[in-house]
Amino acid sequence: MAAVSQNDSRVVVVGAGFAGIEVARGLGAARIPVTLIDRQNHHLFQPLLYQVATAALSPADIAEPVRKVLRGYESVEVRLDEVVSVDARTHTVSLASGDTLSWGWLVVATGATHSYFGHDEWAAFAPGLKTIEDARIIRSRLLLAFEEAERSHDKEQQRRLMTIAVIGGGPTGVELAGSIAELARYTLSKDFRNIRAETATVLLLEAGPRILPAFPEALADYAARKLGQLGVTVRTQCAVENVSANAVRANGEDIGVGFAIWAAGVRASNLGTLLGVETDRAGRISVNGDLSVPGLDRVYALGDLTLLADAKGGNLPGLAQVAKQQGQYLGRALAQKIRSGSASQPFRYKNRGNTAIVGRHAAVFDFGWWQLKGWFAWSFWALIHVYLLVGFQHRLMVAIQWLWRYVTYERGSRLIAEGAGKR
Amino acid sequence: MAAVSQNDSRVVVVGAGFAGIEVARGLGAARIPVTLIDRQNHHLFQPLLYQVATAALSPADIAEPVRKVLRGYESVEVRLDEVVSVDARTHTVSLASGDTLSWGWLVVATGATHSYFGHDEWAAFAPGLKTIEDARIIRSRLLLAFEEAERSHDKEQQRRLMTIAVIGGGPTGVELAGSIAELARYTLSKDFRNIRAETATVLLLEAGPRILPAFPEALADYAARKLGQLGVTVRTQCAVENVSANAVRANGEDIGVGFAIWAAGVRASNLGTLLGVETDRAGRISVNGDLSVPGLDRVYALGDLTLLADAKGGNLPGLAQVAKQQGQYLGRALAQKIRSGSASQPFRYKNRGNTAIVGRHAAVFDFGWWQLKGWFAWSFWALIHVYLLVGFQHRLMVAIQWLWRYVTYERGSRLIAEGAGKR
Repeated sequence: MAAVSQNDSRVVVVGAGFAGIEVARGLGAARIPVTLIDRQNHHLFQPLLYQVATAALSPADIAEPVRKVLRGYESVEVRLDEVVSVDARTHTVSLASGDTLSWGWLVVATGATHSYFGHDEWAAFAPGLKTIEDARIIRSRLLLAFEEAERSHDKEQQRRLMTIAVIGGGPTGVELAGSIAELARYTLSKDFRNIRAETATVLLLEAGPRILPAFPEALADYAARKLGQLGVTVRTQCAVENVSANAVRANGEDIGVGFAIWAAGVRASNLGTLLGVETDRAGRISVNGDLSVPGLDRVYALGDLTLLADAKGGNLPGLAQVAKQQGQYLGRALAQKIRSGSASQPFRYKNRGNTAIVGRHAAVFDFGWWQLKGWFAWSFWALIHVYLLVGFQHRLMVAIQWLWRYVTYERGSRLIAEGAGKR
Repeated sequence: MAAVSQNDSRVVVVGAGFAGIEVARGLGAARIPVTLIDRQNHHLFQPLLYQVATAALSPADIAEPVRKVLRGYESVEVRLDEVVSVDARTHTVSLASGDTLSWGWLVVATGATHSYFGHDEWAAFAPGLKTIEDARIIRSRLLLAFEEAERSHDKEQQRRLMTIAVIGGGPTGVELAGSIAELARYTLSKDFRNIRAETATVLLLEAGPRILPAFPEALADYAARKLGQLGVTVRTQCAVENVSANAVRANGEDIGVGFAIWAAGVRASNLGTLLGVETDRAGRISVNGDLSVPGLDRVYALGDLTLLADAKGGNLPGLAQVAKQQGQYLGRALAQKIRSGSASQPFRYKNRGNTAIVGRHAAVFDFGWWQLKGWFAWSFWALIHVYLLVGFQHRLMVAIQWLWRYVTYERGSRLIAEGAGKR
């Protein structure tokens, strides 16, 4: 093996989500020099972000400092910064701080963000849920809608303010709608004098023929029924045509709302564009089986930013577990390649079950070969997430407390942030 | 007793701090109609706010929704709003929302905010600590200073960025300085590769001859010695003359800083001005022994907004326990007055001990007749605060967890909020 200068072997990893963190861990375990860049200082346990948005958890419960997560890996350096351009020829990245870093290998795992399908002006009225800040904004606006209703003396206006629209019937939309309905029904119902919070209308608007399109139809039907029992009005074949401050227009009808949340579209981060490679309409990069980017040397991409065919001829879904498994794979494979120059077998995804939480004590689980729903699925989900949270934070107390609060519906995090009501 | 219309007996309480909450509780227990107005939706356990600012606690750990706290009192109504004017003649208050409320009795308990002694332009560079939002900003900027230092290649610049100035040597300044020194020394020290966080300089700048002027000299000396052991540089007789983005000027010398925090001056909220009554230079209203406002009928004021002589001829300090005791007193006294028309004995303060936390396992306690310092004082403080937090939130788990995290120095809340670095 030829001697390499330090810069020739340094791996620059962009993004500290599930994928990027695992790559850094794998390379760090092999003592390979890594610089991990993220514009946030925390790694986020995104599957529970909807619980921060609906006041069941605090931001710090599901966000760990990236530096703490990677503290044990001496060869890994963390940078709070943002990539503004990539040069695959000179093997450099330029950062928002003005610095330029050179790399021997580049791994991009910058994930996805919301897509408003060309209507970015809707973002001001219907925020999406990807970051802690998004969750804080949603939580504040949600609670402010009820505060405004309490203050109002106009029944019509109260009804509008207490109408919350969740746009998009995928897992995030289902989880948000269920959780908001429960917040209104079990928690806020005791807090007001002038309104009855439990009469709030929660709308789940889905453009397609059914919610949870990625799940088997029986599970989606079950979820829709359970949502109905919680008081969520599910409307399918309902295409949103406009979003404004106080209304959502769908199928030609204006629906007055107190607040709307966007859970409909996802778009890959702009790293594909920065790399200058071909992407699909959602900005995703089609990667090779070993997660390398076609046409570029020593550049890899993984997670929600990418498209990869699954065993059945479709594409792998944009899930935390896909990103995490890809990260674990690439950490090992790249370490092996850098150490010995040998190539690895292509990545293979193991489906550990796709899940959506419908609400209090109800969930759906799809393992492909097996399906699960109801109370048992919920318990199973809760157990798995306590386990994952403990692994994530090494904080057993937080995990137990979270489970306790979740089961008892004591939502302690009902904070309205200053200025969050301004649009 | 003459029949009164509802508006004649309704008590409007402005401010949901320790004082206002207790007044509402006392009146609520007597089933007297109350409207409590606050511009925040949460009641804050302010004595632990410095721990949110230094990443030891999450905002929700020390903030409870006002509606939840007062949920059990059916005659109490809560309003998220802000008082913009008061008319003592027509017995009305006007609110930021545009509404006007009439009152039979008015209680103002709007507390205090920072005072920059005529230099409000310093606020952008040296934020004060009064609200959850303040704490979030301080936490973010503090962590960002270390992030910037890690990124820098210039030793001089690194040294400046890792210099944190706390301006003001009262209890808040002492607690912040001690807590920041510990954050750098015990927590951040393991996180960086390029800097040694434990070498950070924490300055505590006090204009007077010694820190903790409200405490006996022996306790202040002990606190200064303990701060020194933690690595805090205490400078007394050090008058701050200017604060800018990267420097604090004191005694004619420019000190380069990564971040400065203002803990020097306090000014009462503007309710005294709105009431049109005389105030002292800090905006405080001198109240009568029964907490009524001189010259106004049926108007009371209490807490940090007010000045009241103590038994020794001085004034009562601006402490949470003073505000709380005054609130308990006024809730009872006003209920009695409204119910039976009879007057109460004047308010008497019971000193339950004045305390300041110097850092890990060290505190000072002043009970007037008895003084306590060191590890035992710290344990005593921790026990009392676990007790108070449990009473505050009815959440034993949070209190235990807080104690555990505090003792082990596992600071889980090291989140940098988006946009918080912008000045």
